[in-house]
Amino acid sequence: MNVDGTPYRTIWLNEDGWSVAIIDQTRFPHVFETVTLRTVDDAAHAIASMQVRGAPLIGATAAYGMCLAVRADPSDENLDSAYRTLHATRPTAINLKWALDEMRAALRNLAREDRETRAYQRAWEICDEDVEINRSIGRHGHAILADIASRKAPGERVNVLTHCNAGWLATVDWGTATAPIYTAYNEGMDIHVWVDETRPRNQGASLTAWELGHHGVPHTVIADNVGGHLMQHGLVDLVITGTDRTTAAGDVCNKIGTYLKALAAKDNDIPFYVGLPSPTIDFTIRDGVRDVPIEQRSGDEVSRMTGRTDDGRIETVTIVPDGSDVANYAFDVTPARLVTGLITERGVCAASVEAIATMFPERASDEA
Amino acid sequence: MNVDGTPYRTIWLNEDGWSVAIIDQTRFPHVFETVTLRTVDDAAHAIASMQVRGAPLIGATAAYGMCLAVRADPSDENLDSAYRTLHATRPTAINLKWALDEMRAALRNLAREDRETRAYQRAWEICDEDVEINRSIGRHGHAILADIASRKAPGERVNVLTHCNAGWLATVDWGTATAPIYTAYNEGMDIHVWVDETRPRNQGASLTAWELGHHGVPHTVIADNVGGHLMQHGLVDLVITGTDRTTAAGDVCNKIGTYLKALAAKDNDIPFYVGLPSPTIDFTIRDGVRDVPIEQRSGDEVSRMTGRTDDGRIETVTIVPDGSDVANYAFDVTPARLVTGLITERGVCAASVEAIATMFPERASDEA
Repeated sequence: MNVDGTPYRTIWLNEDGWSVAIIDQTRFPHVFETVTLRTVDDAAHAIASMQVRGAPLIGATAAYGMCLAVRADPSDENLDSAYRTLHATRPTAINLKWALDEMRAALRNLAREDRETRAYQRAWEICDEDVEINRSIGRHGHAILADIASRKAPGERVNVLTHCNAGWLATVDWGTATAPIYTAYNEGMDIHVWVDETRPRNQGASLTAWELGHHGVPHTVIADNVGGHLMQHGLVDLVITGTDRTTAAGDVCNKIGTYLKALAAKDNDIPFYVGLPSPTIDFTIRDGVRDVPIEQRSGDEVSRMTGRTDDGRIETVTIVPDGSDVANYAFDVTPARLVTGLITERGVCAASVEAIATMFPERASDEA
Repeated sequence: MNVDGTPYRTIWLNEDGWSVAIIDQTRFPHVFETVTLRTVDDAAHAIASMQVRGAPLIGATAAYGMCLAVRADPSDENLDSAYRTLHATRPTAINLKWALDEMRAALRNLAREDRETRAYQRAWEICDEDVEINRSIGRHGHAILADIASRKAPGERVNVLTHCNAGWLATVDWGTATAPIYTAYNEGMDIHVWVDETRPRNQGASLTAWELGHHGVPHTVIADNVGGHLMQHGLVDLVITGTDRTTAAGDVCNKIGTYLKALAAKDNDIPFYVGLPSPTIDFTIRDGVRDVPIEQRSGDEVSRMTGRTDDGRIETVTIVPDGSDVANYAFDVTPARLVTGLITERGVCAASVEAIATMFPERASDEA
């Protein structure tokens, strides 16, 4: 996507042909700064400190971390060490492990002198595969948006509501939930996005608003409490969110608060779609509310808030009284009955066992 | 209610018998400080600057503002001037106008030398009437909580979720939504409250958490996004909120986000109650979603956040990127079909035209 007119991915090779550039996402939304990774430790630090986040981007960064390791020392011993270093940064991230396994499989039986070239080639492919998946999600989602636009009176814009950041900043490019939005915007649609702030980590206000704004997409930041009111008053045409994990039956695990928006969409007959790369479908689980474990994170994310003072300093302030307990459930599960459809790279399908198995027959039979 | 063991109302006479003390609520949750009002301008400033807020407390402060005016100069001219000064502080606050009208009616035909005594007497009555209404709401709501508690296994606590602050800080004492909670706690019930942060003004995190904590009621602050997840997992027994205005049909206008919690309660078969003093029922309106105008407030409330730094300074930080639009709808309307019951000072009634008219027959026929 563009940043003020200049096309960017979220990770790329510098002009030297080997060092890797990323955007430091910990400094959003007030500072846009790129960081150069020159060693596997730089890559590990970028992942662990959340300079990069989002499953696809974490995987891409890990892949390039392996490149940097191989360039320094292509031995099997160093490959193993780099794998362990990178894997330890966020041990529960499935996409991270997947990318590391891909890189190891591509390199392990090669002669040492061939490894660097192959590593950079495979890392590039991993990035490009993510971009192509998201581009396809964008194309399929765009058809839904175009259908809505075709029923609008002249001059009426299409209003999309999204929650959290399933944007290009979470991927290598395009994003998942945002891919249809960027595609529609690039094709000239008059589109506007309601951006849920997404407490407690504020990924909507700090990341989604930032990326939409710098690409040029009209948008408005709202408190998470507002979406229901907007839907009651015809101000939302469509909800699109991302997902961390979707079950074989179409239950959608996503950022906390997604379920509340899905309820409001249902109550107001507004379509609720989920943009997802098919690898995030978990065919081993059906009942998401019962069986998807929900991470509880530090209460500090709720009780403390970071931003920029009027004189430009970045400060963190406490906003909850001393002595009050705080709970921080990070995700919730939206039952499939509230989901209008899943926008995947193969097309749009209903959130049901049958529809998902029909679209991904090879995985439905193998993995269930 | 108590603050660390000492009973407090939110407004009271100082020992001198005439000056008025309030709690400066703009400094919550990190500073507890009382302020003395000695002139009508002090009272007007307290209302305009939101040192006091909440309809009942605003009315009580205005009533005492009239006392301070009359004490300085009991002439009709000064009464009129004080009325205008106080009314201008928050011209749309219905309770403010009601209290001022009550004070004027009590004073206008009295001899000047009798006015000061009568003013303080009437202001006291206005405060005491609010306390009695809330105490009754507490008694009726307590019966609902006690019924839930009676079905719990030994050692299981009763979990209530509330949104915003309809607490004693918004009233003279007890609060409306919180009155059943305080009553149950004082009677020894094992009760715990999930406190919605209530973005964007954070009345839950800064006011409700503060007052529950200092009274001693176990509670946990959560992001507004969390309630649905808690309800899916059996962690909420009951929702109680306040209301700014309830229609003749039982549609509930309350702080933005209330509707989303009501949807989640309905989806999970959890009772959703509203605590309300009957004066907030508006018999002239039936369809709340269609006919209650929703205030839009400054976007700064969304994009800026105030709190305490680790070294004790109070700072305000910006948390939305430069250039992003922000919208701030302050209230939403929960349709009566989602409301289990209204807890009023006369008892609990269903959210329906018939039930409300049966409980308040004199108003239903006169005002409709």
